Amino acid sequence: MFINKIKSEGLSHLSYLVGNDGHAFVVDPRRDCEIYVEEAVKAGCRITHIFETHRNEDLISGAPVLAKLTGARVLHGPNAAGNVAYADTTHEGDTFEFGNLRVEVLETPGHTDDSLSFAVFDTDFGDDAVGVFTGDAMFIGDVGRTDFYPDRAEEVAGLLYDSLRKILALGDQALLYPAHGAGSVCGDSMADREFSSLGYERKYNDKLRISSREQFIKAKIAEHHYQPPYFRLMEKLNLTGADPAPRITTPVPLSPDEFRSLPEKTVIVDTRTVSAFLGSHLPGSLAIPAPMIPAFAGWYIEPGQPVVLVAADPAQARVASQHLIRIGVDNLEGFLTTDMPEWSAGGLPFHSLPVMHVDDIRERFRNPPDDWQILDVRSIKEYRQESIEGSVHAYVGELPQTLDQLDRNRHYTVMCASGARATIAASVLERAGFSRVDVFLGSFGAWKATD
Amino acid sequence: MFINKIKSEGLSHLSYLVGNDGHAFVVDPRRDCEIYVEEAVKAGCRITHIFETHRNEDLISGAPVLAKLTGARVLHGPNAAGNVAYADTTHEGDTFEFGNLRVEVLETPGHTDDSLSFAVFDTDFGDDAVGVFTGDAMFIGDVGRTDFYPDRAEEVAGLLYDSLRKILALGDQALLYPAHGAGSVCGDSMADREFSSLGYERKYNDKLRISSREQFIKAKIAEHHYQPPYFRLMEKLNLTGADPAPRITTPVPLSPDEFRSLPEKTVIVDTRTVSAFLGSHLPGSLAIPAPMIPAFAGWYIEPGQPVVLVAADPAQARVASQHLIRIGVDNLEGFLTTDMPEWSAGGLPFHSLPVMHVDDIRERFRNPPDDWQILDVRSIKEYRQESIEGSVHAYVGELPQTLDQLDRNRHYTVMCASGARATIAASVLERAGFSRVDVFLGSFGAWKATD
Amino acid sequence: MFINKIKSEGLSHLSYLVGNDGHAFVVDPRRDCEIYVEEAVKAGCRITHIFETHRNEDLISGAPVLAKLTGARVLHGPNAAGNVAYADTTHEGDTFEFGNLRVEVLETPGHTDDSLSFAVFDTDFGDDAVGVFTGDAMFIGDVGRTDFYPDRAEEVAGLLYDSLRKILALGDQALLYPAHGAGSVCGDSMADREFSSLGYERKYNDKLRISSREQFIKAKIAEHHYQPPYFRLMEKLNLTGADPAPRITTPVPLSPDEFRSLPEKTVIVDTRTVSAFLGSHLPGSLAIPAPMIPAFAGWYIEPGQPVVLVAADPAQARVASQHLIRIGVDNLEGFLTTDMPEWSAGGLPFHSLPVMHVDDIRERFRNPPDDWQILDVRSIKEYRQESIEGSVHAYVGELPQTLDQLDRNRHYTVMCASGARATIAASVLERAGFSRVDVFLGSFGAWKATD
Amino acid sequence: MFINKIKSEGLSHLSYLVGNDGHAFVVDPRRDCEIYVEEAVKAGCRITHIFETHRNEDLISGAPVLAKLTGARVLHGPNAAGNVAYADTTHEGDTFEFGNLRVEVLETPGHTDDSLSFAVFDTDFGDDAVGVFTGDAMFIGDVGRTDFYPDRAEEVAGLLYDSLRKILALGDQALLYPAHGAGSVCGDSMADREFSSLGYERKYNDKLRISSREQFIKAKIAEHHYQPPYFRLMEKLNLTGADPAPRITTPVPLSPDEFRSLPEKTVIVDTRTVSAFLGSHLPGSLAIPAPMIPAFAGWYIEPGQPVVLVAADPAQARVASQHLIRIGVDNLEGFLTTDMPEWSAGGLPFHSLPVMHVDDIRERFRNPPDDWQILDVRSIKEYRQESIEGSVHAYVGELPQTLDQLDRNRHYTVMCASGARATIAASVLERAGFSRVDVFLGSFGAWKATD
Repeated sequence: MFINKIKSEGLSHLSYLVGNDGHAFVVDPRRDCEIYVEEAVKAGCRITHIFETHRNEDLISGAPVLAKLTGARVLHGPNAAGNVAYADTTHEGDTFEFGNLRVEVLETPGHTDDSLSFAVFDTDFGDDAVGVFTGDAMFIGDVGRTDFYPDRAEEVAGLLYDSLRKILALGDQALLYPAHGAGSVCGDSMADREFSSLGYERKYNDKLRISSREQFIKAKIAEHHYQPPYFRLMEKLNLTGADPAPRITTPVPLSPDEFRSLPEKTVIVDTRTVSAFLGSHLPGSLAIPAPMIPAFAGWYIEPGQPVVLVAADPAQARVASQHLIRIGVDNLEGFLTTDMPEWSAGGLPFHSLPVMHVDDIRERFRNPPDDWQILDVRSIKEYRQESIEGSVHAYVGELPQTLDQLDRNRHYTVMCASGARATIAASVLERAGFSRVDVFLGSFGAWKATD
Repeated sequence: MFINKIKSEGLSHLSYLVGNDGHAFVVDPRRDCEIYVEEAVKAGCRITHIFETHRNEDLISGAPVLAKLTGARVLHGPNAAGNVAYADTTHEGDTFEFGNLRVEVLETPGHTDDSLSFAVFDTDFGDDAVGVFTGDAMFIGDVGRTDFYPDRAEEVAGLLYDSLRKILALGDQALLYPAHGAGSVCGDSMADREFSSLGYERKYNDKLRISSREQFIKAKIAEHHYQPPYFRLMEKLNLTGADPAPRITTPVPLSPDEFRSLPEKTVIVDTRTVSAFLGSHLPGSLAIPAPMIPAFAGWYIEPGQPVVLVAADPAQARVASQHLIRIGVDNLEGFLTTDMPEWSAGGLPFHSLPVMHVDDIRERFRNPPDDWQILDVRSIKEYRQESIEGSVHAYVGELPQTLDQLDRNRHYTVMCASGARATIAASVLERAGFSRVDVFLGSFGAWKATD
Repeated sequence: MFINKIKSEGLSHLSYLVGNDGHAFVVDPRRDCEIYVEEAVKAGCRITHIFETHRNEDLISGAPVLAKLTGARVLHGPNAAGNVAYADTTHEGDTFEFGNLRVEVLETPGHTDDSLSFAVFDTDFGDDAVGVFTGDAMFIGDVGRTDFYPDRAEEVAGLLYDSLRKILALGDQALLYPAHGAGSVCGDSMADREFSSLGYERKYNDKLRISSREQFIKAKIAEHHYQPPYFRLMEKLNLTGADPAPRITTPVPLSPDEFRSLPEKTVIVDTRTVSAFLGSHLPGSLAIPAPMIPAFAGWYIEPGQPVVLVAADPAQARVASQHLIRIGVDNLEGFLTTDMPEWSAGGLPFHSLPVMHVDDIRERFRNPPDDWQILDVRSIKEYRQESIEGSVHAYVGELPQTLDQLDRNRHYTVMCASGARATIAASVLERAGFSRVDVFLGSFGAWKATD
Repeated sequence: MFINKIKSEGLSHLSYLVGNDGHAFVVDPRRDCEIYVEEAVKAGCRITHIFETHRNEDLISGAPVLAKLTGARVLHGPNAAGNVAYADTTHEGDTFEFGNLRVEVLETPGHTDDSLSFAVFDTDFGDDAVGVFTGDAMFIGDVGRTDFYPDRAEEVAGLLYDSLRKILALGDQALLYPAHGAGSVCGDSMADREFSSLGYERKYNDKLRISSREQFIKAKIAEHHYQPPYFRLMEKLNLTGADPAPRITTPVPLSPDEFRSLPEKTVIVDTRTVSAFLGSHLPGSLAIPAPMIPAFAGWYIEPGQPVVLVAADPAQARVASQHLIRIGVDNLEGFLTTDMPEWSAGGLPFHSLPVMHVDDIRERFRNPPDDWQILDVRSIKEYRQESIEGSVHAYVGELPQTLDQLDRNRHYTVMCASGARATIAASVLERAGFSRVDVFLGSFGAWKATD
């Protein structure tokens, strides 16, 4: 009896292959799902069931694809906002046996109406759960967000409260297997720890320690979460069942000539590091370093829009492409194979972004340049906690929608916590025609560290 | 904060890489220890500490080698039967910090005098342990064997009882990370489940449910465990620190000619499957299918004896070689590259072993051949539970020592639970000059299934 | 400018990825064709062209699939026995440029009417070819078989003669890149050497040294080649374009119970080694050791017939499955996960085959058993060269068709050159109800070696 | 019979594993030599011989290490500048048999006095060589440099001429296997093609087409080659036999804190891309993008000097480390794990380099800044062919020695062919205290392209 965690970096999405005695099931498979079959075979197991904790909004479910590959049956909770085309509905108390491993279904709504948890028992040993898959209901150090039904905010927060009590009732001994880890946008303050138990969470998870239902609802309602526009597409696809990932996820290398003859509407996503983008980049390209794609690409790329990448090497292009495919961006036309020296040696145009050190910023405060403005692109929560006096706020993800509130002719220094999101934001501004943009590398971190 | 389990198949040895915030430690590294460094680098961590739960008797510790590779400090418990040359001694209550991860030392003697457990805390969260590394003190579903100090049997069983209480006192919420899993010879009845918590074990581990110290001691003393002779070598090497594993673990392919000109004393270990050995094998070869090497090779190969392998392919030779290296058998001269058709097509000699089906055995009971005897080579515990009437017992591992009690001229049908250990035993008999040996494939399993 | 050979073991099929300056083409891709894209990306190249030297009869062409994956254009020769649906036709003298790499088309019929060769030039250097892809026209040490148009035997042998002269006219300096290497059934006496040049072949390839067209035709007509029945299917599929290989080529592990409830018509292919099959195997299973599948499976499995495997481990099942997929056997229902000890311990039935050493055979000649007959299953060519007196001949591949000429009640000892093909043949006999079959391990090789 | 090329990128060093009939030899192994053993085992071969074409000056020979790992015998030519401690001497006409593969030794001095070539014959076929390993005597499209004996310049050029004739006499049919490919500093104008034959080279290799010995000598003497200082160390180590590469080649990740407390003399090598270095880098770091390490690190790092890396990720650190180890830089203390945003967010210092586009340069020519000077760091050969008027020259490799001829207070724009070497040079200047340095990205390439 084994539980193998399969983690999708960036999304911090956790899925699980659980096997016993020649059979296996998968909890919350991702779209590129060959890995579950390969791991199962290595362990001598055949995948017969797929359990979904809820309809995911931040990634494409691999359940319909994996079901087709393996013949496995997909189980989904009731009350999805429509019929989950590829799944059977399972309910509170349903059980599934895999030899001496028994799975029991708990309805745990709140994060979504269809949220389920799956408790795991070893019938050779005893009547208590050994572990529980909690989806987005309970995380390590946090609980699920409840902002998806804005007009039912109190109700669903209350539902989550009840669901969490139901999960905790499984007992302190049960190991906790959530659907996301630290770094995910699906929670707010997850622990940067990859293992826990219900007993540990009961004692030390701040949200679980709120013993009053009312206090809990109040705390949940006070939270602020962002919803990137691509969430809508995910929800739709995860009802009907998305197509399989492309057979080959590595994009095609393109020459500078091919790159320059791309259709106008193509988005150029520069997946290189922040520093590489600052040093030189293709005019009009959007900076999203490969590891940041899962969190930020969905804010800027529209469904169906053709995309090309700039990457330091094929490995980076592959990682970027996998990230994009997991959130439904399939139409990757290729990636630029040459690094900036080769590109520029062809006489082709490039841009650099001026990079500001914290000392430069302090100097500017002493002698402010004309029309100068610090633009802070962190989340509103971070900004409200503490910010540099005189800075204005616009969240990096929402920037395309809020550009009109900024002045194309002003001199903006973009900042965030370190300079990473600031570089994304600077690229958004540059694409929109802002010509006096520089990046505060180190950003609020450096500001505080040198205070 | 992550805990990565690294499992050595066959030995069912579990070691752990634990990392947090750029630093990492390893618990109970195995001899071929590059993997810890590679995994640590992937996770952006530097290994600075190595913790040993006790002096291993069933495998070579990688601690001294890994320490040299990384500069990490090795920590070992007090009361090892001598000075652990490569380690510092750590004591009850010592703590080690890795950012917000704190390790606390518990002295938990019983399995050995130097046994330690290591509790892990997340100081960002709370004062209770999140997990505990228990070495060979506590397993999932079982506890450590206490037969290593025969003249102090009651005392050490009692020590273990106390140690287990000390571990359980960490609380139900703590995850359990033992040094062995199902299949190891270090326990008796481990669960075939790879995850548990103290809470779960407290409730469902039979040995932990014995609430009386006296009853526990009695139960432990009643156990019977085998100790392969190579244990002595491991204990010695793990005091002084063994040499690193060879840089290349795959043995050299040898031609039939090279194979035939090996020194007399060379042991030929046939690592192919049971069925392949039965079908045809080199005269004088010892059958130990690759996955069975960790459990059985140590019974038959003497320290320093040259060894060659027969393998179906280089991958099998490599697996066999890794198993052997982990238990200190380094002098592998190579492996035979050709399969039996090629070997035999050169006019070279080979043997087959007659294979008996359960129907053949029943038929024989009806019409017994001359001088016929069933030889059951299972453990004495298995044999005593249930056996075929008229069979005699000799444990497969101890066969070289008990051969003289058998009659070289009798007709033996060797059996075990399935035929696997029986095939090893048959090869031992064949090497010793027994000429009327056949193998009961299916063995006691088939006997019961067709009853 | 690079040429990477991609070899499919067993079929000894050679395909090539050729790249220059960011672009690449593939010659004769196999069905599981992701590898070309991956290799091309690693080399910074985009595949834009696929060249087929001819319509393959021994494997499924990956050209239509690879074309769909990459957008590349497929080029095929004229005079295919029908319209190659997925390809454009290219003719003598057509050229294709990839930077300074130029490809020139030569029509080289004979093996098939549509056979092409592709000469490669480096236009930065000179007017002579650096290399040539010859498909099945010219091999290292041999030339293509010409038995596919039985009623035009002399004509096509003559055509091949002319084609070979045309190829040789490219000059001694040109490197030779054929579509098959030693071990393929597409030639008769290929060198076991993986590299050559036209100059070397001109001097030392026996067939090329026949200077008279008449002598060449005579020699070709005197050859005897076997054509497994699946060739017909390959030819058909390679006109219309076969489906892609399954996304996951590793078959599903099945339990003994699942295995026993398979539909009657399912073929059980035992892919383990010869010796493992001899030792014990499932009743009714067909022995085809994994590496022999490409050469022999096509004789016994009918299109569309469901297949399950017996394999020593998942890796062997995967290799077997890849071999089967390349020749169009897709309907793999799974593989048996347990080895024979576990299988038999469940009380399930198994068979063994008696194994004869050359000494046993000689002893039998001295005291022949009743009704005893040696059955030699080598090729008719091998048999005619030399055989054991008194043996009868039936080619292993044709055995299903020639069974009726044998006597189910006789005692057959099956032999070949080593025992490998004999074991396949013995399994065919056993499945057909022959009950007195044994295998001469070592076979003719041992007979000669001990003469 | 197979020849597998093993290529070391960057050095463009080519070594070969050649196998036949269960035995294998290696030509010119590199220091990290486990790969040869692994490849040999996969092919069922045992390495018994190692042939060295000459004493390498640009990399550490793996021959002594591989010999120890395998027991193979090392063969080296006569007239090495001393005794090759780990090798036997072999002479013109010596032969070695590997089944039907015969190796024949040719003494081919010129590049070095001890240069050998090894002709390969297939004795099953004929008396002509199938291929030849030429070391640094003959390359594809070029011949070896002859500048290592400055006081015998004419003599050794003449020796090479004779050696090349001797090689060509093997016949047009022989395939060519040199020790370096395009990109190596061991030749001057190698073809960017990875395959050739003696016949092709005879016709199209410019140097081989010089039919007069005198003309050839004259042409060789007119060449200019650079010799990085580390060549001396390689030559010394390759006489005595260098130590094995470290068991683990990936360096240790270091935190910013650990990084900042390094000993003064430590060299920080920034292995990231050119653009990443330009965007932001650690003050005092030396820019050598990972793929450029083999060609440039040997100019700047002194034997024994401690080195740390800045790398985008562990994979890049590993590649860089492997490159360094191959040229004898073993004392790698670790690599920085954080990217520049994290580094700078800690308030730590960083620099950027101003990046100039070709348009900026042209504008500067129209309005020259004060004290402005273009510094061209290409090879003297490139500079003499064509350069920007007014630029001064200093070769990038020799810059540390020629710094005193430059003015620390001037404003330098550094250029090369694309900006890559210019970035290395700019980092050298910055480390030396030049404060007004910018980089012309695109460099001479852009200058010409936009002319």
